[in-house]
Amino acid sequence: MSGPPREIDALIALMARLPGLGPRSARRAVLHLLKRRDMVMAPLAQAMATVALTAQDCRVCGNVGTTDLCPICDDPRRVTGEICVVETVADLWAMERGGAFKGRYHVLGGTLSALDAIGPDDLRIPDLAERVLDEGVSEVILALNATVDGQTTAHYIADALAASGVQISSLAQGVPVGGELDYLDDGTIGAALRARRRV
Amino acid sequence: MSGPPREIDALIALMARLPGLGPRSARRAVLHLLKRRDMVMAPLAQAMATVALTAQDCRVCGNVGTTDLCPICDDPRRVTGEICVVETVADLWAMERGGAFKGRYHVLGGTLSALDAIGPDDLRIPDLAERVLDEGVSEVILALNATVDGQTTAHYIADALAASGVQISSLAQGVPVGGELDYLDDGTIGAALRARRRV
Repeated sequence: MSGPPREIDALIALMARLPGLGPRSARRAVLHLLKRRDMVMAPLAQAMATVALTAQDCRVCGNVGTTDLCPICDDPRRVTGEICVVETVADLWAMERGGAFKGRYHVLGGTLSALDAIGPDDLRIPDLAERVLDEGVSEVILALNATVDGQTTAHYIADALAASGVQISSLAQGVPVGGELDYLDDGTIGAALRARRRV
Repeated sequence: MSGPPREIDALIALMARLPGLGPRSARRAVLHLLKRRDMVMAPLAQAMATVALTAQDCRVCGNVGTTDLCPICDDPRRVTGEICVVETVADLWAMERGGAFKGRYHVLGGTLSALDAIGPDDLRIPDLAERVLDEGVSEVILALNATVDGQTTAHYIADALAASGVQISSLAQGVPVGGELDYLDDGTIGAALRARRRV
């Protein structure tokens, strides 16, 4: 029987590999684009080609940008001596949206994982140790996800940097702003109670 | 604060307009692509540009393809004289996956809708009436969705074609194959009961 033509089938197959899209929603997205060929599809293809050509990882921190050195590493107004370690570029963007951190970043690119055979060398941890020595860093803030893998990685990094004498901290755990106790898991409530502060 | 660079922001904004993706999942999809620039992102951009350039609507039935006349209209093995009317190209592909229909199609491009000011002329209904006369059509099968808008449009088309004397039919309504009564809505059960067949 006659389904979509070969070119459109190929596009659907590629779109279906995006996270959050399956074969059915990829088909829907492509049909949406087909209806708006000139106004949406062509600009989207162009934007994607531009990014594919120009994007590069910052050689210092691993942030993604269009230059060899990312805008954050290149910004003289950022505080030197503070490095915030994050798992992914998405986490870096989340920290920047918060706007509370004024130092620079180090993107690991994931977490340690025995199952997926991801070791310290795959995560730019040696680079981090080097930066701590070279840049005269006073504090490393571990902003890793509060998952088992994230916390395992945080412990590993803390151990690896212990000899350097740098101060190591991690994000506080507790009740999220706007959070309701009734909807929080027991682990979070326990952590918030243990880390309680005098008023 | 320093979020994604301008080019990447523009790509995220365009991706976020796809159905099924919002700002957050578009960001995730773009980060996924950024990790696989050469293997996935560049080919996807290329495939999209190709489709944007080559795709065109069939001048007879409205199916999308890469030629002036789509492969179905162009296929001499398809039964002439039977036209299956569908709302969208997605529905045409669904019918083709079923593989039960051997005739040709007519894609309306939507349904009549007073709210959205979509009238018969926006839906290629005049083209359909013309095809019925020109192609010596014996049967028009209305395969519109079993929604209020779909059924309103089906009634309108049946009225519009009544004078031509062509036989008009619609898909049967009833229990879907593999369907369990307990999970079916009352309307479907009622329709299946009214259309019951002797065994």
